[in-house]
Amino acid sequence: MAERLITGPDLDDLAVGAAILGTGGGGDPHIGRLLAHAAVRADGPARLVPLENVPDDAVAVVVAMMGAPTVMLEKVPSTEQAALAVQTLTSYLGKSPTHLVCAEAGGVNALVPVVAAAQLGLPLIDADGMGRAFPELQMVMPTLYGIGATPMSIADEKGNRGIFDTVDNHWAERLARSATIDMGCSAMISLFPMTGAQAREALVPGTLSLCGELGRLVREARAAHCDPVAAVVERLGGAELFTGKVVDVSRRTEGGFARGEATLEGLNDRAGERFLLRFQNEHLVAVRDGAVVATVPDLICVLDAEAGTAITTETLRYGQRVRVIAAPCDPRWHSPEGLELVGPRYFGYDHDTVRVGSGALT
Amino acid sequence: MAERLITGPDLDDLAVGAAILGTGGGGDPHIGRLLAHAAVRADGPARLVPLENVPDDAVAVVVAMMGAPTVMLEKVPSTEQAALAVQTLTSYLGKSPTHLVCAEAGGVNALVPVVAAAQLGLPLIDADGMGRAFPELQMVMPTLYGIGATPMSIADEKGNRGIFDTVDNHWAERLARSATIDMGCSAMISLFPMTGAQAREALVPGTLSLCGELGRLVREARAAHCDPVAAVVERLGGAELFTGKVVDVSRRTEGGFARGEATLEGLNDRAGERFLLRFQNEHLVAVRDGAVVATVPDLICVLDAEAGTAITTETLRYGQRVRVIAAPCDPRWHSPEGLELVGPRYFGYDHDTVRVGSGALT
Repeated sequence: MAERLITGPDLDDLAVGAAILGTGGGGDPHIGRLLAHAAVRADGPARLVPLENVPDDAVAVVVAMMGAPTVMLEKVPSTEQAALAVQTLTSYLGKSPTHLVCAEAGGVNALVPVVAAAQLGLPLIDADGMGRAFPELQMVMPTLYGIGATPMSIADEKGNRGIFDTVDNHWAERLARSATIDMGCSAMISLFPMTGAQAREALVPGTLSLCGELGRLVREARAAHCDPVAAVVERLGGAELFTGKVVDVSRRTEGGFARGEATLEGLNDRAGERFLLRFQNEHLVAVRDGAVVATVPDLICVLDAEAGTAITTETLRYGQRVRVIAAPCDPRWHSPEGLELVGPRYFGYDHDTVRVGSGALT
Repeated sequence: MAERLITGPDLDDLAVGAAILGTGGGGDPHIGRLLAHAAVRADGPARLVPLENVPDDAVAVVVAMMGAPTVMLEKVPSTEQAALAVQTLTSYLGKSPTHLVCAEAGGVNALVPVVAAAQLGLPLIDADGMGRAFPELQMVMPTLYGIGATPMSIADEKGNRGIFDTVDNHWAERLARSATIDMGCSAMISLFPMTGAQAREALVPGTLSLCGELGRLVREARAAHCDPVAAVVERLGGAELFTGKVVDVSRRTEGGFARGEATLEGLNDRAGERFLLRFQNEHLVAVRDGAVVATVPDLICVLDAEAGTAITTETLRYGQRVRVIAAPCDPRWHSPEGLELVGPRYFGYDHDTVRVGSGALT
């Protein structure tokens, strides 16, 4: 595959697709899209390079936003912050970075590395650490491959910076989460320094291209008066679980996360059925008429019934007409180690994983 | 003045004196004394050098414990932790340290730099940043001289390390406090990198020697059946405020601090009078029969009525017979900038400073 450029017009499709892979969390990519537009306008397009083209000795670092996406809507990150986080880490490492890495292809963090790539003139690898969105920083495939999250850097918009070097990736999450809260619930981080060889092994390939493609499919289906939800389901090799109306949302902010449940009442051929979504930033468990029909780590996405665009857990509200789809995650998440890191029990749900059919990420 | 060595026998006097200058806080130096004994036994004595002998181009860094002293009694720091904090900072700075600095001559932090000095073979400056103990890291004389607390390092006993580089010293306190809480409420920090010229201007000279001298005076007075409290009052140029019995202690742990009040009933010539102590880790305000008679930044010390040794705010309890003394602080704390940083109003008391006579630190 060949390297290609991400220019302004690509960003809208990328944001629509990233919202879908965000599975309700990862933050609405709207702000990320605005930041990326500004960065691409100022510094030129970002280069997207295929994962298999990354040389063994590349110095690759993840760049991401940490914090509550709800806060970011009011406290917009400064455009230099992502680049500052990368520079703080690589200057501590005493190495010049050669590639940037996306931590999660879902939500705002699909766009943040585009901002940094444009500003720093560094290629961005067409891959990510999850193939979706997850709420904690250790929940990435590199953790399964024994790659340390640290040394990592953290930077706020005021100019405060920090570096953590921890004994494991859970400690990195803990210390960085507290610093993020102090910094006003949103901060930029750079972490998981890795070689090209490690990146090729531990990342989920092609996911930034997949975001762009999902956005394009939704756009083209709408222009052709076709069904955008069906196009997304087909591309992801997933299944449509439910069509209904949101009749109840119970949401609370606990420990820095948006936790809660949403209840849907069936419409059309689902009339009379009830559907429950349990979420912690992301949708984690889907229950139809009392039976668990899909769980994390597979993707559970709530889409606008007509437009096919994703609805985040923090914007779910009474009366919305939605369609719920599920799609298979990268199969490595279904290993025993993967489920220990991101399975339903880690999130406090006392039941096993329910998988959907095989598809795009398998 | 000449350089001298701190050997095992010096540590007991140093700890007794440091508890007095700790004004009820700074942590019981008992654990610090044990750590220092172990370090001096393993690595030889620590060198104590007079402040005026420090060359202009010295690379001096503070080393201290941060956290709740109450926790340290159960979670004893590892002996390598202080040295690790210094090494983490100086390796980030890319400089070899030439001198160690004591942040507070009161409590456990008078002993922690002795541990690091013995282990690292570096001279310790006979001075400190406060001339007493204070609860927050920006509350040192170097802050008044515009010296940044950061870059600073933090290290726990598990091997987790962090570096902060902040826009001001209050931000350093905030981020390091959260990391300390995550690390289990006690951590070692190294901070306030400064030149010898800055150290000579911004530190309070001779305070580690003063700790040793106070300890010796108490020991000698007891051996001679004289009054150790009177000896301490005379050496500090202070005043005895009250003799009484503790009849009530109200103590709560708030925001990582031990906050509260203690009430004393007068004994001997104070019979019938009441005395109130308000504290936040340290004793901050003394009220005799409704009138404020001493406040921070001057030193308010509660001593065992017979033994003359200091009683920390976390060990105050019903029935103790105590004598309360006050002593003047370094006069620079009484400047407008000093009072803004450590005056009664900073701690939430709505009244002005009440000073005691001039003395040892003036």
